[in-house]
Amino acid sequence: MTQKTPFTPNISKVASAIQPFHVMKILAEAKALEVAGQEIIHMEIGEPDFSSLQCINQAANQAVQKGLTHYTPTMGLPALRKKLAHFYQSFYQAEVNPNQVMITPGSSTALQLVLTATLNPGDKVILADPAYPCNRQFVNLLYAELLTIPVSHETQYQLNLEQLKKNWQDGIKVVMVASPSNPTGTVIEQTELVAMAEFLAEKNVYLIVDEIYQGLVYDRPAESVLANQNLPDNVIVINSFSKFFGMTGWRLGWTVAPKHLIPILDRLGQNLFLAAPTPSQYAALRVLDDDALCELEQRRQIFENRRNTLYHAMLNEGFTLKTLPQGAFYLYWDVSDFTDNAQQFCSALLQNTGVAITPGKDFGQFNADTHVRLAYTTDEENLQLAVKKITAFIKTQR
Amino acid sequence: MTQKTPFTPNISKVASAIQPFHVMKILAEAKALEVAGQEIIHMEIGEPDFSSLQCINQAANQAVQKGLTHYTPTMGLPALRKKLAHFYQSFYQAEVNPNQVMITPGSSTALQLVLTATLNPGDKVILADPAYPCNRQFVNLLYAELLTIPVSHETQYQLNLEQLKKNWQDGIKVVMVASPSNPTGTVIEQTELVAMAEFLAEKNVYLIVDEIYQGLVYDRPAESVLANQNLPDNVIVINSFSKFFGMTGWRLGWTVAPKHLIPILDRLGQNLFLAAPTPSQYAALRVLDDDALCELEQRRQIFENRRNTLYHAMLNEGFTLKTLPQGAFYLYWDVSDFTDNAQQFCSALLQNTGVAITPGKDFGQFNADTHVRLAYTTDEENLQLAVKKITAFIKTQR
Repeated sequence: MTQKTPFTPNISKVASAIQPFHVMKILAEAKALEVAGQEIIHMEIGEPDFSSLQCINQAANQAVQKGLTHYTPTMGLPALRKKLAHFYQSFYQAEVNPNQVMITPGSSTALQLVLTATLNPGDKVILADPAYPCNRQFVNLLYAELLTIPVSHETQYQLNLEQLKKNWQDGIKVVMVASPSNPTGTVIEQTELVAMAEFLAEKNVYLIVDEIYQGLVYDRPAESVLANQNLPDNVIVINSFSKFFGMTGWRLGWTVAPKHLIPILDRLGQNLFLAAPTPSQYAALRVLDDDALCELEQRRQIFENRRNTLYHAMLNEGFTLKTLPQGAFYLYWDVSDFTDNAQQFCSALLQNTGVAITPGKDFGQFNADTHVRLAYTTDEENLQLAVKKITAFIKTQR
Repeated sequence: MTQKTPFTPNISKVASAIQPFHVMKILAEAKALEVAGQEIIHMEIGEPDFSSLQCINQAANQAVQKGLTHYTPTMGLPALRKKLAHFYQSFYQAEVNPNQVMITPGSSTALQLVLTATLNPGDKVILADPAYPCNRQFVNLLYAELLTIPVSHETQYQLNLEQLKKNWQDGIKVVMVASPSNPTGTVIEQTELVAMAEFLAEKNVYLIVDEIYQGLVYDRPAESVLANQNLPDNVIVINSFSKFFGMTGWRLGWTVAPKHLIPILDRLGQNLFLAAPTPSQYAALRVLDDDALCELEQRRQIFENRRNTLYHAMLNEGFTLKTLPQGAFYLYWDVSDFTDNAQQFCSALLQNTGVAITPGKDFGQFNADTHVRLAYTTDEENLQLAVKKITAFIKTQR
């Protein structure tokens, strides 16, 4: 071969249409500033700043030293599925059958599996706007149709039964909610969730409940939709070891699905990912022990203190905050008093002050240009400093 | 809620259509027999019997002890991408740009990404029959169309340029090959691969080369298609740390893709899996060191000895073997002299002798009922014993 045969790139429509995360641009700018010597306060990334617990690092190491480095079953280590079911009982008073728990390599894969199992091309999916951005992409990749419902502080940035009824139309197959929500940190009350599940069951529609931030809630007990008795068989729960359990890099999530979906999810999983990482599954077995859960409760309290610090520091500066976030580690902030271009606002804030936050655009379209997400994944001192810097920045903009 | 609202399962067509792996049935039967006290010789599973190297277990542990348990970039740890590029240079004399290497959670995800990036619904994909079963499922899940080309021992169970030309038609977007192949263990010669790549580039069609078993070849040097100069920009390579590197449970693979696909794969990856497992990536960094590669070479020699033992033991029993497998750890065996129902043959063999092998049906349709796959992922003594048991079993069947 002396000359290279020409080839014209030939990319699929669905892949071409995927938008990059705008937070990635902010992150890249922040890193460039750091390299140039500027101090950055990172409030842009949805990742706890803590590393994983030492006890789980040791548990993973003990397992691999014993040679436990082979594939597990696609559904996950039986012991882990059982222990998660037990955890639901002790932590949430929820009856969960271990056979309905499937371990996945991260909750992204769990979302992809359950959507692939339920959606035909052209089926409609209801999502709140704003919401976790990947959800929209998963729907697009399956050639299903998105019906986003704008939500504001008036409904705590969440969907409710009334909105479902108001926006109802033919062809809806799945409704997706998240509680607590990324980017808003708000929760859906259990009575509302159950009412939605029942309404949707009557319509023969699935309800996917993203409980990825479950456990990270403040001023209220942690709850799971699975604790409600006589829940109809349309409810699918997605969860993760990343956030409350602080195991981001281990890439482990799970789904609790109705019995009829389990054989389908197993077969899909065999093809799509084969098995979740084995060392991570042994680490997760350890993180469900009581002493580890105690350490996680201490971290939850730290997040609660941070939320309070950030929230009150902002109020003290005279900013209007329309909701008190109840969970996760996010504050979704209406910046319409200061800008109608949140992306530019975030970029200028970063360049001028070193405070990195995420523009609303990553989470949807509704009022996205006038909202930003602040992640309190940094310590209280940094949060207070960040609020001072934001205040000073806004003054210079006037 | 006093009564459960009824719900009728409502599964997508594409998920309903996915066939389970028949090997899973064999595996379940084998495990049941083991529980009942029978000795089983496992030759059904595509997984090395070795655990991962101690040095990589330690490297992963050192990283997590240092707190390196956070997300990595979606494309993978920069150091790992760079080290893989260097490995291509030193091991295969292939020039690879680290920016074109993307780390994935297993090669299944790599396959899914590159097919999602390239296939529109209705696009046609050429695959050999027999081939790795997941490939067909990935194509189905993207609503693309499969064109399988039957391959026999006459072409070493591989596609070649002549077959592509003979089977050519409009609408083909991707051709997938594997070298060495699962289930046949055969390789495609580099001159043939390059000729296929050039022919396909002229037609503006991608060539996906599955090199997952690369490194595990016998009586010949290990080769990569990437070592060929002036390769057109339609060639996508898929690889894995599972087989040659013996890291199955760590769930780590990679793709080397043409430059134009990299931003697309990055965006798809951000949505589909976020990042590969961090401890596994630190383990993989270590497995590319010279001392680890020396240990892997010893394991390769063990597989080569096993292949020779199995092959010659079968010849000695008078069985006809139409190809000498050149790589991977599989022997694809034409059992048409003994059965026209390979699945029943495998099941009866297992029940009568405790030898577990995989029916051809898992790999396609062409002559699938008269072929079985034997995996030499057990020691030479077991392989010799298995051949004796198979021989005795066949005699009882006559």
